[in-house]
Amino acid sequence: MTQRGLKITTIGGGSSYTPELIEGFINRCQDLPVKDIWLLDIEAGRQKLKIVSDLASRMVERSGVDLKIHATLDREEALKDADFVTTQFRVGLLDARIRDERIPLKYHKIGQETTGAGGFAKALRSVPVILDICRDMERLCPDAWLVNFANPSGLLTEAVLNHTSIKAIGLCNCPINMIHDLAQRFQVDSKEIYCDFVGINHLIWVQKVLLHGRDVTSQAVDLFSGSSAKEVMANIPEIHFDPEFLKSLGMIPVSYLKYYYMQPEMLADCIQASETVGVRGEVVKKVEDELFELYKDPELNIKPQQLAGRGGARYSDAACSLIDSIYNNKEDIQVVNVLSQGTNLDLPYNAVIERNCVINGNGAHPITIGHTPLKIRGLLQIVKAYEQLTIQAAVTGDYDAALQALTIHPLVGSADVARCILDDIIEQNKEYLPLFHTR
Amino acid sequence: MTQRGLKITTIGGGSSYTPELIEGFINRCQDLPVKDIWLLDIEAGRQKLKIVSDLASRMVERSGVDLKIHATLDREEALKDADFVTTQFRVGLLDARIRDERIPLKYHKIGQETTGAGGFAKALRSVPVILDICRDMERLCPDAWLVNFANPSGLLTEAVLNHTSIKAIGLCNCPINMIHDLAQRFQVDSKEIYCDFVGINHLIWVQKVLLHGRDVTSQAVDLFSGSSAKEVMANIPEIHFDPEFLKSLGMIPVSYLKYYYMQPEMLADCIQASETVGVRGEVVKKVEDELFELYKDPELNIKPQQLAGRGGARYSDAACSLIDSIYNNKEDIQVVNVLSQGTNLDLPYNAVIERNCVINGNGAHPITIGHTPLKIRGLLQIVKAYEQLTIQAAVTGDYDAALQALTIHPLVGSADVARCILDDIIEQNKEYLPLFHTR
Amino acid sequence: MTQRGLKITTIGGGSSYTPELIEGFINRCQDLPVKDIWLLDIEAGRQKLKIVSDLASRMVERSGVDLKIHATLDREEALKDADFVTTQFRVGLLDARIRDERIPLKYHKIGQETTGAGGFAKALRSVPVILDICRDMERLCPDAWLVNFANPSGLLTEAVLNHTSIKAIGLCNCPINMIHDLAQRFQVDSKEIYCDFVGINHLIWVQKVLLHGRDVTSQAVDLFSGSSAKEVMANIPEIHFDPEFLKSLGMIPVSYLKYYYMQPEMLADCIQASETVGVRGEVVKKVEDELFELYKDPELNIKPQQLAGRGGARYSDAACSLIDSIYNNKEDIQVVNVLSQGTNLDLPYNAVIERNCVINGNGAHPITIGHTPLKIRGLLQIVKAYEQLTIQAAVTGDYDAALQALTIHPLVGSADVARCILDDIIEQNKEYLPLFHTR
Amino acid sequence: MTQRGLKITTIGGGSSYTPELIEGFINRCQDLPVKDIWLLDIEAGRQKLKIVSDLASRMVERSGVDLKIHATLDREEALKDADFVTTQFRVGLLDARIRDERIPLKYHKIGQETTGAGGFAKALRSVPVILDICRDMERLCPDAWLVNFANPSGLLTEAVLNHTSIKAIGLCNCPINMIHDLAQRFQVDSKEIYCDFVGINHLIWVQKVLLHGRDVTSQAVDLFSGSSAKEVMANIPEIHFDPEFLKSLGMIPVSYLKYYYMQPEMLADCIQASETVGVRGEVVKKVEDELFELYKDPELNIKPQQLAGRGGARYSDAACSLIDSIYNNKEDIQVVNVLSQGTNLDLPYNAVIERNCVINGNGAHPITIGHTPLKIRGLLQIVKAYEQLTIQAAVTGDYDAALQALTIHPLVGSADVARCILDDIIEQNKEYLPLFHTR
Repeated sequence: MTQRGLKITTIGGGSSYTPELIEGFINRCQDLPVKDIWLLDIEAGRQKLKIVSDLASRMVERSGVDLKIHATLDREEALKDADFVTTQFRVGLLDARIRDERIPLKYHKIGQETTGAGGFAKALRSVPVILDICRDMERLCPDAWLVNFANPSGLLTEAVLNHTSIKAIGLCNCPINMIHDLAQRFQVDSKEIYCDFVGINHLIWVQKVLLHGRDVTSQAVDLFSGSSAKEVMANIPEIHFDPEFLKSLGMIPVSYLKYYYMQPEMLADCIQASETVGVRGEVVKKVEDELFELYKDPELNIKPQQLAGRGGARYSDAACSLIDSIYNNKEDIQVVNVLSQGTNLDLPYNAVIERNCVINGNGAHPITIGHTPLKIRGLLQIVKAYEQLTIQAAVTGDYDAALQALTIHPLVGSADVARCILDDIIEQNKEYLPLFHTR
Repeated sequence: MTQRGLKITTIGGGSSYTPELIEGFINRCQDLPVKDIWLLDIEAGRQKLKIVSDLASRMVERSGVDLKIHATLDREEALKDADFVTTQFRVGLLDARIRDERIPLKYHKIGQETTGAGGFAKALRSVPVILDICRDMERLCPDAWLVNFANPSGLLTEAVLNHTSIKAIGLCNCPINMIHDLAQRFQVDSKEIYCDFVGINHLIWVQKVLLHGRDVTSQAVDLFSGSSAKEVMANIPEIHFDPEFLKSLGMIPVSYLKYYYMQPEMLADCIQASETVGVRGEVVKKVEDELFELYKDPELNIKPQQLAGRGGARYSDAACSLIDSIYNNKEDIQVVNVLSQGTNLDLPYNAVIERNCVINGNGAHPITIGHTPLKIRGLLQIVKAYEQLTIQAAVTGDYDAALQALTIHPLVGSADVARCILDDIIEQNKEYLPLFHTR
Repeated sequence: MTQRGLKITTIGGGSSYTPELIEGFINRCQDLPVKDIWLLDIEAGRQKLKIVSDLASRMVERSGVDLKIHATLDREEALKDADFVTTQFRVGLLDARIRDERIPLKYHKIGQETTGAGGFAKALRSVPVILDICRDMERLCPDAWLVNFANPSGLLTEAVLNHTSIKAIGLCNCPINMIHDLAQRFQVDSKEIYCDFVGINHLIWVQKVLLHGRDVTSQAVDLFSGSSAKEVMANIPEIHFDPEFLKSLGMIPVSYLKYYYMQPEMLADCIQASETVGVRGEVVKKVEDELFELYKDPELNIKPQQLAGRGGARYSDAACSLIDSIYNNKEDIQVVNVLSQGTNLDLPYNAVIERNCVINGNGAHPITIGHTPLKIRGLLQIVKAYEQLTIQAAVTGDYDAALQALTIHPLVGSADVARCILDDIIEQNKEYLPLFHTR
Repeated sequence: MTQRGLKITTIGGGSSYTPELIEGFINRCQDLPVKDIWLLDIEAGRQKLKIVSDLASRMVERSGVDLKIHATLDREEALKDADFVTTQFRVGLLDARIRDERIPLKYHKIGQETTGAGGFAKALRSVPVILDICRDMERLCPDAWLVNFANPSGLLTEAVLNHTSIKAIGLCNCPINMIHDLAQRFQVDSKEIYCDFVGINHLIWVQKVLLHGRDVTSQAVDLFSGSSAKEVMANIPEIHFDPEFLKSLGMIPVSYLKYYYMQPEMLADCIQASETVGVRGEVVKKVEDELFELYKDPELNIKPQQLAGRGGARYSDAACSLIDSIYNNKEDIQVVNVLSQGTNLDLPYNAVIERNCVINGNGAHPITIGHTPLKIRGLLQIVKAYEQLTIQAAVTGDYDAALQALTIHPLVGSADVARCILDDIIEQNKEYLPLFHTR
């Protein structure tokens, strides 16, 4: 901690999400003495960084909080002596995302930003970058906490925790959104609901729901099945799970599980969208452009409402909340990404899982799971194997590991298609994947 | 052991495979004092049983061996005091198999006898039958060894080992066929080759090949890729693995893995066959009819050559060889299906695996594997989870477990399709699945 | 919950500890609507039960709280529809304890109530009793929580959790006393200290100490070594750990670990005490007599100060606090005895461990440990193996398991001595061990 | 393999055991084409090396086998391109052993060469030496097999396998001696008996005995108890296990387990011996002197009978037999020390265990154990924890690890005594333990 108070560094500071983060710190200023927020970005993001940091400064000014916004392209000064580093970068920007989403569609496979072949491409690009950041952190701020919400969040966090000495915690807004959604269905406050999560990032289930401590899981499954509540995740099509299927599952799956349980329907939807409104990356690009137009307005000094529709709702708030609990040693429970170390006995010891954790000044401490219910175990295990192969490929440039990773992914499931997609990914991401060559 | 010598009981004794089994015992008569072979079948198989047992008797007579063939429909007398019980029954006969293969095709999914939705249907029908046999064995011959080669062999063996007190070992001809195939490629005798197998029945890989004790795995992968050798398994289409893919895998997969690694190609082949020559069950039905015509010939007193083309080559010989090693305490190594109990650390303790085992008078003792290579781990785990859910469903009639089992199977991968197939299976197998009802 | 509020049943209600329990419920009456406390005892304890329940009634009356004390010898009415059952019985009363402590001394081995050969005898007597209680609970109050603090607490809880369907949580006052002791050494409130406990009941270490969330373990070890603070546990001799040894351990051991780390010194002390003031059971007997004299005083209507010196300080308060957190779904952290289920990867899945747990309306949920530090792992494992053999012996009357349990206990360590002690225990506890016979 | 044939290097070649090794290779010359045996020793052993290598050369000459004996003090030329390296060195020679045995006795603890505090001292001295040898092997003969029978054999093998890339297998003569002893009791040939071993070096049990494949364990326990057969291990006092105790154990313990199960009796015997005939090292020293006198005889050209009484009977033969099975890819079963990797689920993955293994050209492959019987699990676990702490101490010079290792050893069991012994060991082994300092 600097003398003035906490120094927070945000990698990918020019992101459209930043205002939510700033708002989060402003709202918590009583308990969380953040004094310096360093927004770091790369040359290609210089313009956005300017727009965002100016808005951030206006927000701070309006709030009257003693907090200073710094915008920089210099990683060295940004990381030096930071207390917390948050990551929200996107390697290759939205154009890379659009490619990630379009390539698999060419081979009649689901193209999604974080899941399947699209998420695989994103992982290959992002792992080297986050490891590079952590190497700098080891030198410049070895005791800082890394709060990662760059995607694929669990996979990147696992890469960091197994290949560097940095203390990292991965975040996703899915768990918190699911809790809020369930609370709404039960018509209670989200604090009255406790969801016991099992799984890994974007492949997670609520295996038990407690209302005031009593088990209401089967009622929750009914409420979840019956209602046509608004989709929890803005970026996922509103196709609903079969109620009979949900009952047989007896748990509540994250929206991303539609890609696995309803692969044909979701693929059809992806294809149709790509041919009409465009893939999600293309949609988002427009939303972003509009957001940045708004952000430019020198009169704007609050987080604009429109940001809520962007898809990452509650992400930044989850980050602030996590930082708050660490700094203030709160001993509350949050659902974050940490090393399993036996928490889930059906995944490797060194696997990162998404799990209810006690958060205190010493970090995030997962609550024991034991064995995973058989109904979800196999899916978890195969996707984790895919993730570990992908990390291995990304770290070493091992084409064989990459090909096998993609082949066994349940959303690919074909050696031949995997090879075509992999070569296409390598071809189209040349500048980001210097270690790889097609065969 | 009876006073005369060993009593062997074969359940499904009227099968066309029986002559190979008889030949196996005749050939081993010096070391293995089999005195009574009881061929047991059900009323519906009475006629085939007669044909087969008559041929068997003629074979024995010709050999001059002191061995008696008994044909019976009475399970009680067949099992009473047996030393070894072998199982080769097929619940619902070939007609059920044909349905198993045709139902999934209606929903554009692979229809295969032992794998995917077809194997699932077969498992639901067969688990209760084999458990019922074992209940009788517990009473009539509690110390007998059960040598199971009814399919799905690993899954049925797991059901027996976890739900009864019977000592069971599961058999498959895939490992022995793969060893012979590799020996041929290296142009050596099969005894000179050692294959280290990892996996479960019909989902197995050779992770290491030794020639005279030296590691020649990568050479073996090359030989396996390059050559257009005759398909190892007669029942699996001759579509070849991509050599580049095999190299990236670095192991030799069993032919059944084509259904997973080349799902689109194999599905296309299944569909095409079903529309031309018929599904495999239909083809086999004709082969069987021809075989039984041959068997009827009162002049025939040897195993006819044509049986080799039937698909189950070396099955019965593997059974005789296993019985020989147990009876004679041989301490040799055979690849069989046994409880893992930690042999493969990435599968449950109570899972049945297919593995190199030391065979002695005390049974089959697997050689430690440790952790499975990451490249194959996920697939193994998800299919084992499918198997364990299927056993649970078959034992209890739990529709929910059945639906989840089918949904997560990599050859189904859709909750909606799974439900359609499941209901179709239940509908078309009413008489064999009294515990189940569609929803 | 009855219509009036919670029904609490206390087995061994005539214990001298009961006033602390009553006080605990009175103090929490705002949040915890206990309406009926049933004090259950056996015929032999009728008189003490009368004294204690009269005092309890006077305490309640004085407090003005709407709560009723019931004294009974009828287990049926005591357990019927209970919400929480607490256990503080002592099979064979203090006379049995005195025998437990004296028998090992005859063979030059440590005689301690809960540890070593003494605790072994107590376990053999107590396991059948607690299982019998739980059988009744399964019938009369299947949803009640069992809060066990009868000793050996972890071992009895493990017996219950593995042999009945009752939801049980084991309690001990060691962890809470250790936290208070450390807080005192740091001169802070106990709420400001967080101790990360690893181990099993009476064999536990603080592996990490946090002060306001910061790791201060090595400072804690220094404070713990240096100071001559009053012994944490009243029943354990004040012999101090060697500071050099503590530094090399790097953790803070529970006082009971003196029996293991300082066996010769502790044995000498036991022997000396037994020849002068008497074994602990004899000392306690006098204290108890004095306490009951006090309790008889019809003017006494509060918990007398003298109870604090009895040895079980904070036991009953820990129980009230646990019940409070379950009932009120508090999600706070308490250190209790629960099934490991992988929490500690070096102990069996079904082992009960003592561990920091999140307490909510659904029970106690342990925080993952992963692997145990090597320095303490072996001791933990051998004592847990001893415990599991002892449970097996107590449940089945298996002399062989009993003999092996005692032989491997680190405080016995001799097959010959184990046999002498075991036969002596069986001989002197005939009426409590009907399943056992000496050889 | 050199052009001439196999090159074998024996570290500690001047040992009195060498003639048995030479005899073993001569006897196997038909199947095992050993052409060069390099006997390596250090300056202090120059004289003995001369005596032994001369005898070896005479033995070879007499046999007429084409094999050359080389004696050298130059490790470089000895290791260069070796095919197999065997280790039988003793750091500090017999004088160090005598100190190891005498130091613990000063503190009333068992002083034994490989077990307890004595074995601990030996381990501290030997680990750095064997690692140093392996560093040279990595450079000079990276593909050679290391066949270690330097003691403590399991511990040293574990150090090698976890800290170097050398393929090592540890050997002990206990298993083979136990098999021979049991065969004698059953009056059959040792080939007819199969013993299923569970444990680690010098802490091993036969959990199952098969005679011609049938389970005769309980009969074996009876035979083992009843008879007053000559002690299996020459170096262990003939004090017999209590038959009642053995029956309750239901397994056959190695002689070294007397130190654990009969600690008081064995200690008394150690003390008495030390005061009369001397500790074992002193006795051996005389035997050795006599042996070397014999060896000097230029007429002697066979292994003298007297060597059999030396204590390490069948050690060297076990080594030849192991080398034979590796070289000839025999696929037979031998009991050796290998990494567990899950073979024994109650020990760490990286622990070395002593276990029935299939030996082929690819090494030693352990047969799965699963979970260890509860009766022996705890002892195994605590001694393995001691071993792993000791390796850690020996590798790094970590005094704290050393002190904790010794403290938890069941034959020490006192922090105070451990510290005295440790400081005494460090003081008396200064020249061999440069990393350590007393405190």
